[in-house]
Amino acid sequence: MTNSDCWIPIPENSDFSIHNIPFGIFSDSNSTKRIAIAIGDHILDLSIAAKTGIFDELNIDIRIFTNEFLNPFIDLGKSVTSKVRKIIQKELTNESSVLKGEAAFLTAHKSSIMMHMPVFIRDYTDFYSSIEHATNVGKMFRDPENALLPNWKHIPVGYHGRASSIVLSGVDVRRPIGQTLPAGESQPVYGPSQRVDFELEMAYIIGKKTELGETVQTVDAEKYIFGKVLFNDWSARDIQKWEYVPLGPFLAKNFASSISPWVVTMEALQPFRYESPKQEPQVLPYLRFSGARNFDIALEVALQPDNGVETVISRSNFKYMYWNMAQQIAHHTVNGCNLNVGDMMGSGTISGKSEDSYGSMLELAWAGQKPVKLEGGEERKFINDLDTVIMRGFCEKGDVRVGFGEVRTKILPAKR
Amino acid sequence: MTNSDCWIPIPENSDFSIHNIPFGIFSDSNSTKRIAIAIGDHILDLSIAAKTGIFDELNIDIRIFTNEFLNPFIDLGKSVTSKVRKIIQKELTNESSVLKGEAAFLTAHKSSIMMHMPVFIRDYTDFYSSIEHATNVGKMFRDPENALLPNWKHIPVGYHGRASSIVLSGVDVRRPIGQTLPAGESQPVYGPSQRVDFELEMAYIIGKKTELGETVQTVDAEKYIFGKVLFNDWSARDIQKWEYVPLGPFLAKNFASSISPWVVTMEALQPFRYESPKQEPQVLPYLRFSGARNFDIALEVALQPDNGVETVISRSNFKYMYWNMAQQIAHHTVNGCNLNVGDMMGSGTISGKSEDSYGSMLELAWAGQKPVKLEGGEERKFINDLDTVIMRGFCEKGDVRVGFGEVRTKILPAKR
Repeated sequence: MTNSDCWIPIPENSDFSIHNIPFGIFSDSNSTKRIAIAIGDHILDLSIAAKTGIFDELNIDIRIFTNEFLNPFIDLGKSVTSKVRKIIQKELTNESSVLKGEAAFLTAHKSSIMMHMPVFIRDYTDFYSSIEHATNVGKMFRDPENALLPNWKHIPVGYHGRASSIVLSGVDVRRPIGQTLPAGESQPVYGPSQRVDFELEMAYIIGKKTELGETVQTVDAEKYIFGKVLFNDWSARDIQKWEYVPLGPFLAKNFASSISPWVVTMEALQPFRYESPKQEPQVLPYLRFSGARNFDIALEVALQPDNGVETVISRSNFKYMYWNMAQQIAHHTVNGCNLNVGDMMGSGTISGKSEDSYGSMLELAWAGQKPVKLEGGEERKFINDLDTVIMRGFCEKGDVRVGFGEVRTKILPAKR
Repeated sequence: MTNSDCWIPIPENSDFSIHNIPFGIFSDSNSTKRIAIAIGDHILDLSIAAKTGIFDELNIDIRIFTNEFLNPFIDLGKSVTSKVRKIIQKELTNESSVLKGEAAFLTAHKSSIMMHMPVFIRDYTDFYSSIEHATNVGKMFRDPENALLPNWKHIPVGYHGRASSIVLSGVDVRRPIGQTLPAGESQPVYGPSQRVDFELEMAYIIGKKTELGETVQTVDAEKYIFGKVLFNDWSARDIQKWEYVPLGPFLAKNFASSISPWVVTMEALQPFRYESPKQEPQVLPYLRFSGARNFDIALEVALQPDNGVETVISRSNFKYMYWNMAQQIAHHTVNGCNLNVGDMMGSGTISGKSEDSYGSMLELAWAGQKPVKLEGGEERKFINDLDTVIMRGFCEKGDVRVGFGEVRTKILPAKR
């Protein structure tokens, strides 16, 4: 199966190849929200496609495709959702498909098409699983000789974040106001954050619930993941620095996090498995795993000031992650904590090994010491008002490309 | 209006007086969940009461009382929900009420009556607002001379917790398994927590949503609170100690938190307002407030081992809180973070000034140095398997008593 087998034209280097088939929620001039997949520059409205009977063999209530979130669809289980994906691939490569000529296809760029949050996220957890990122932060703020904290190589450190303020790509984010302690002062001040930063992350969406008290082993953990999105964990570094001891980040993070609209399934990511870095010292048995549990996903961050000229400021890869998703889920449930369909788990900032692969402005500009140069001569230590941050990600192997599209967010000035 | 005006008998010292009228969700042998209020030892099924026409003047769709959560009812707004409460009070003190003889009243103790989670909690935030608790923890684990961290008197410190594992009073909680670092060792171990602890807290339920980017001033903040419950923030101190740096508590808390079933409204708490402690140094303007923003709520914690003999091990009071709810909401929204109806906000452990008023076993037994003596001769440093922890709370002024009932939880042995 190749893109050329598909009777919908797929532009070269499209993220949404015949191998991908990611799921999302859209509406058009008719305001009802429906489930769609993306193919090339088109989207396929599954609420219409289902009426042609292509999913009849699955015995699902096709009203599930008219929905404001993917949750009930995901909750059908992978045995169903992966067949839906396969049937769509089959129909798209079948010249005599009943879908041909159907009104189910829409141009994704049509101005009336609006994408929406793909899932209702009840609980959101963020991990801290890139050793390069944790080391960089430790070097900057703690001890350069002992950059990693004692627990870091034993625990996939994580914390709970705010679900309500996770927004979709394209939603502008306002610079947060808050409390910070100016350097050398003893009294805090109130005002707009001066150190708004992005964090290049990916997030995965839980596809299968667990009961309170249930644990998930690493070997089974991927069965609990429906798919992945790009994730920008917006951070206000100055607010974070003052507030985070001893209970962790709070207002520095919960003003907004941004995700990409299309959920790329774990099935689509199978060809891009990658060996994890060796973990030394060896982790406790409940965190051990076998097989290639990382994924080779090329990532980039671009910054576009108000002048419209875009500069790629980082190129990283998800394959660098020290702690993989299977370990994160095993750890999250080791105490019996229950997961729900639609829960979101962030990877933590994904930094690579080289200075141009760091996943945050904090690291790229090394806490302001090495401003990042932009096309056209501007420089940045952190994110300015009216800057747009764009994250992109894709997997590629031979002719097969599976991409995530982008998460694109403009920072607006603080509220007066 | 007094309890004796009510034609339903109200036992002396009942938490559920005519002045209270708390809301909850119940089911009986008929499995549909409905909204009820508690009065004395009875509950009033509002789905039946509404059919008598007593709420007709409010023009609400009475199907809202047949619901698995209070959220849609709360979302009607205080202008409606406070009238519902007043109409119930009026009917209960009207000898010729249409409710008399109705099948709407059920004995709360009837074995077929089951209480359920009152609200769907999307986001849960826990604060750390008792100066006595924060000072005790600082003395034990940091510097006794500088027990409070530099930010503590400037910020109502808070963090996000897990919503999915909040359970109702009566639901047993299993001792969590996890990773800890034994004293003096450099390698962590896996096993059941040896230091399971309760935290005596109260939680409030958000009654009015805010939009992303919106801020709430302290003067308006109480309008965003529907009511309060008792809250036991279960904690595994050994897991917490190893995991919490630098991003805060995670598995040490998210195995379970327990709440009481009846939500006591802010209206019912009005007579019990109390002056806050003076805040020195003065806080930033966005955190300043006027009026009595604390509430005089007597709290107690009892421990009942498997032998069934209960010992009250702490008597505290919500009035001690250094940071009040209005300040917490102003802080939580200062950066534009959005709140939803049903969100839950924990106070943090509520410790009083004396050693018998501390809100956790950690403090009562001073990290194991002063075991707590129980009736019958047993001692406790932390919570044992099969121990039941019971928290109770009530307000009292003259003849008026408004109580919260209890949150009661048994700890089961760790899963094998």
